[in-house]
Amino acid sequence: MKKLFYPESIMVVGVSDTPTNLGRRIVENLERFHFSGPVYPVGREGGNLDGREIYTRIEEVDAPIDLVVFLIPAPFIPEALEVCGEKGMRYAVIESGGFSEFAEENRRLDERVMEIAKKWDIRFVGPNCISIINLENGVVLPFVSLDPGGIKTGPISFVGQSGGIVNATLRLCSNENLGLNKLVSMGNKLDLDENDYLEFLISDQGTKTIGLYLESVSDGRRLMDLAGSARKPVVVLKSNTNTASNQIARFHTTALAGDDEVVSSALRQVGIHRVHTLQEMISAFKIFNLPLMKGPNLAAISRSGGSAVMAADAAHRYGFRLNQFSDSFLKFVRQKARAGVIRMTNPLDLGDVFDLEFYREILHRALKEKGVDGVLFSHVYLSGIDVMSTKHLIRAAKEFSHLYQKPVALCMIPNSGEWFMMRRAADFPIFTEPEDALKALSISHSYYKNITDREPHPRTQFELPTQKAQESEIRSHRVQGPGEVFELFRQYEIPVAEYRLAKDHEEALEAAGLIGYPVALKTADSDVVHKTEAGGVMLNIGNHDELNEALQGIKGDSFLVQKMVDDGHEVFIGGKHDPEFGPVILFGMGGIFVEALHDVVIRVAPITEREAGEMIDGVRGSALLKGFRGGLKADLDALRACLVRVSRLLYEHREVQQLDINPLVVRGEGQGCQVVDAKIFS
Amino acid sequence: MKKLFYPESIMVVGVSDTPTNLGRRIVENLERFHFSGPVYPVGREGGNLDGREIYTRIEEVDAPIDLVVFLIPAPFIPEALEVCGEKGMRYAVIESGGFSEFAEENRRLDERVMEIAKKWDIRFVGPNCISIINLENGVVLPFVSLDPGGIKTGPISFVGQSGGIVNATLRLCSNENLGLNKLVSMGNKLDLDENDYLEFLISDQGTKTIGLYLESVSDGRRLMDLAGSARKPVVVLKSNTNTASNQIARFHTTALAGDDEVVSSALRQVGIHRVHTLQEMISAFKIFNLPLMKGPNLAAISRSGGSAVMAADAAHRYGFRLNQFSDSFLKFVRQKARAGVIRMTNPLDLGDVFDLEFYREILHRALKEKGVDGVLFSHVYLSGIDVMSTKHLIRAAKEFSHLYQKPVALCMIPNSGEWFMMRRAADFPIFTEPEDALKALSISHSYYKNITDREPHPRTQFELPTQKAQESEIRSHRVQGPGEVFELFRQYEIPVAEYRLAKDHEEALEAAGLIGYPVALKTADSDVVHKTEAGGVMLNIGNHDELNEALQGIKGDSFLVQKMVDDGHEVFIGGKHDPEFGPVILFGMGGIFVEALHDVVIRVAPITEREAGEMIDGVRGSALLKGFRGGLKADLDALRACLVRVSRLLYEHREVQQLDINPLVVRGEGQGCQVVDAKIFS
Repeated sequence: MKKLFYPESIMVVGVSDTPTNLGRRIVENLERFHFSGPVYPVGREGGNLDGREIYTRIEEVDAPIDLVVFLIPAPFIPEALEVCGEKGMRYAVIESGGFSEFAEENRRLDERVMEIAKKWDIRFVGPNCISIINLENGVVLPFVSLDPGGIKTGPISFVGQSGGIVNATLRLCSNENLGLNKLVSMGNKLDLDENDYLEFLISDQGTKTIGLYLESVSDGRRLMDLAGSARKPVVVLKSNTNTASNQIARFHTTALAGDDEVVSSALRQVGIHRVHTLQEMISAFKIFNLPLMKGPNLAAISRSGGSAVMAADAAHRYGFRLNQFSDSFLKFVRQKARAGVIRMTNPLDLGDVFDLEFYREILHRALKEKGVDGVLFSHVYLSGIDVMSTKHLIRAAKEFSHLYQKPVALCMIPNSGEWFMMRRAADFPIFTEPEDALKALSISHSYYKNITDREPHPRTQFELPTQKAQESEIRSHRVQGPGEVFELFRQYEIPVAEYRLAKDHEEALEAAGLIGYPVALKTADSDVVHKTEAGGVMLNIGNHDELNEALQGIKGDSFLVQKMVDDGHEVFIGGKHDPEFGPVILFGMGGIFVEALHDVVIRVAPITEREAGEMIDGVRGSALLKGFRGGLKADLDALRACLVRVSRLLYEHREVQQLDINPLVVRGEGQGCQVVDAKIFS
Repeated sequence: MKKLFYPESIMVVGVSDTPTNLGRRIVENLERFHFSGPVYPVGREGGNLDGREIYTRIEEVDAPIDLVVFLIPAPFIPEALEVCGEKGMRYAVIESGGFSEFAEENRRLDERVMEIAKKWDIRFVGPNCISIINLENGVVLPFVSLDPGGIKTGPISFVGQSGGIVNATLRLCSNENLGLNKLVSMGNKLDLDENDYLEFLISDQGTKTIGLYLESVSDGRRLMDLAGSARKPVVVLKSNTNTASNQIARFHTTALAGDDEVVSSALRQVGIHRVHTLQEMISAFKIFNLPLMKGPNLAAISRSGGSAVMAADAAHRYGFRLNQFSDSFLKFVRQKARAGVIRMTNPLDLGDVFDLEFYREILHRALKEKGVDGVLFSHVYLSGIDVMSTKHLIRAAKEFSHLYQKPVALCMIPNSGEWFMMRRAADFPIFTEPEDALKALSISHSYYKNITDREPHPRTQFELPTQKAQESEIRSHRVQGPGEVFELFRQYEIPVAEYRLAKDHEEALEAAGLIGYPVALKTADSDVVHKTEAGGVMLNIGNHDELNEALQGIKGDSFLVQKMVDDGHEVFIGGKHDPEFGPVILFGMGGIFVEALHDVVIRVAPITEREAGEMIDGVRGSALLKGFRGGLKADLDALRACLVRVSRLLYEHREVQQLDINPLVVRGEGQGCQVVDAKIFS
């Protein structure tokens, strides 16, 4: 991959000297951004571009080429790629559109390109993209003219799908004086996808923070593994949240885990910060340019009372602690208060301190305070008059922030004449008001907690589904009844309330005798999905007579007689196969909690014991399990173990489209839990 | 009040000719903003300010004065105000700090000032503020120098507490090219408060949109009445959400309705849009400068595919409908698509239409579409090159938006050189990305729905608490037991499950006989707050023997025997007295729903039947009441009526600090509801 971003020579195919030609813009960008290697333009009509010969055929170029860029009509790509393969080129960029994104009938073209690439071992970017920008070495390949003057080189790399988003990110970063390193517009992701770029950027020296804009996820598990093990922050903007995907309407589970909720859960599971707008992404980039916030202790300093109040509100909202400042700090501040009108609280309101140069020293001392992990400094200054001292303050914030390895979130509202000037005063981020500054600090703090508290758990390296899947003899596209499902559960040691299957009334009566009353009687016909509504379930049958009566009333041709489980909390465990992340597990309290209150937690399977515990804690209704208002304290150990086992089952049985355990009864501490009813759609 | 904003003559007290004097800045501001009436500076040391005589004493000025502005040390204010009163001045501005906000012992000074103001019928702004700016007539009274060049006059008025927030708003609005009309920094609100300013601004011709920044609410009910009946949008930023207020820890009700949740509920109740940051307020100002969004139908047009995807996501998030465009519209667009590569969907991706002048016509036709209530136009343009055509687009958006009386939310990301230029291209708002644009449109749409669907319901004009309060003989600062509470409920026709009070075991047995078994036995001692936990409740007592046994076990000296209410849903109704909004009513489902899931709705009392219905619908767990999964359908008519009655009780009994009905059992349709247990703290 390195050659893609650091080629020593580049060929651009599709160049002419006509002014509207897009290919020539690529050559011009390379020139303008000072790419130092040789560039070979190729175009049918030949000619000359700014003194550079345009070759009429690829074959004419007699030099080693590290990277070839195509901007010719899609139908010509296969032939051209074949020639490049023959000539030994191994990295390509296809910027042309007109593949399957344009019309489904072009899918054959996609396949042809892939065949040729595979044959010659070529990896390529695109098609349908503005491809790659590497500001380190001037490899700037978009076919739109870019101006080096407006773009700053720095530690942030960004991968997006379309050119529009890459451009928007470029502008927003430049406006905020954020330095960029590498940018990728992936286009159709026919060969290389976000995970390939991500893997490269994680190992890339010049990249300290990574932003990903995704409209689809190519391989969710690899994304989780990569981002989850990266030693640099990865910020993900996943859009396209509104696609109605292959919903299987039969079970309600599906509706509970909309694809977008799976994305959010999966990313959170490995500590990736998900944002929903470009501006939120920029805010994350800003804060990740600073040392991380290593604890929850915030010093808030403000020049305006109103801003101090809003800072306190936001600090509370984001869970920061506002400790009291030390006596020596307060003594220091007090000496400069004009009328002594300072309340020595945190937030500290500096409204009465008019010596702006003195602010630097206050900031310095605040960072030195022991009980301070980061500082919010909300600044107000007079336009035109306090410009220099404010610039000094910004530079001091940068210096002290790095000196003490603590973040300083500086916010101010310059007027239009000074807005960008202040942003360029130093390589240091400016926020607008306490809310966005503290939200950013909370992102930094969450990231820090996550990397220091990370559990190694690669989701792609789990033992692969083996013969277990075959053993269980699960047929496809059908609902499995409790009999089959319970047998599968036995293999995974998922406890099921004692039951027996019965083919007729006689067997049912016999089964009840063996199990002991009270029992439940259920239809075992697998095509009755909602048994309760369909009159397929009778509960609390106390003796033979009652059972006889129940057998007369129940629908169905085969039966399941089950021991009644009393005295426990009913919970729900679900599973489904997500198209992007594979098997996921769901947990919630039974009945209305899941269905009307949507109080459900999702995780990508398999999960660890610890993750099982987090799932339980993540459901608000789980207060019930912990002995709410003198109620029964549930056997959480058993529940956690059960969640882990179900997650393994889901992982090892990829043919399971949906799984529904409803209810699992969790009994008192030490009493275990038991599945009462379950079904699987596979 | 009009004289305060439109004085014909102004006196400024506290002026000298020394350069650091703050009072002179007021005089200079008046000059700079072309206030046309006479201005009389007064200052002990006399002298001359830019050719204007400084009077040494107030008495020296022999002219009628409409408004006097004080910027002298606080202790001198009373005397000066007295003189002004004598001279017939009726409006004053006190900018000086140093009153009770500085030290509690200065409260006497507050009182003195109020006494003098009352005596002379003077209304005043402040103290401790930068007071008033009226851009219509140059009445610019802050003691900080302001620059008319950077400030645009327009239809937005803003009222804030501190000067810092007024200044920040001024800058943010100016940067967005939003025109301002009147600004007020209220300071300590010793006399005039937000409601006084709001009342004036509602009737003020020049003001079309009102922003309020509040750190405290002076009279919540008047605020609700004013803002709720205003025929212009009122946007409220209420901060100081984190104040631990007078929490009465005895009942859990209090914790359920944090003061800030009451504020949010009360504002929502009258359709006031609450924001949490200045930037959100600016966004609301932007959209309220345009015609309102009168329906949910959105046309989303974008020049970038990524932006189109994010527009679709955001449209879904904010509940907008993306209807299909008409054939004639699509035919029109198609003619300009370069390679025919346009998907004719909504959002419409114009990536392949390069004729920027043509965009104006597309926008025009989109607004003309029948199924379109508003347009999102996400624009991308080449810096330097497409500047003129983009400015034309902005001006066209303004023209067409007003022509068709539909909003156009235009978003784009100009580079730093063009950022403010585009904002100044017309009197038209620019958003950054689809998310903020659509959030703003949703604010506009909510506001429209609210004003067209408003229920007249003045909360201050309700019949005042009369002798009813005395009748009920409620003592203060104590918990009332069920006996007293049930008697009060009877007066309000709030149904209570049949009960009798009993002083001893014999009376209890007799009572049960009269009521009929099964009964519940409860301690009637009013000091046992949590009866269940304290062993003060026995349920489902089936006969005399069981009751005898229960009486042996129960704690307490007096008893309440109550008919068991079976077959119903248990719900919770609460009430409390909020310091800012007075009596409020709470509703939620019983038990865990309220306490662990915090699924509670709050309204300011009294409420209408319709509001009662909205409360029920606002609770997610109320799905249970509507026959969730074949369960009992509750008597919602009875529940609504009960909520209305409880809300009247709360309104008429201001001495009630907290009320707790838990549970109210709501039975099946037509079966009514009954209070089972209740307590009041007063």
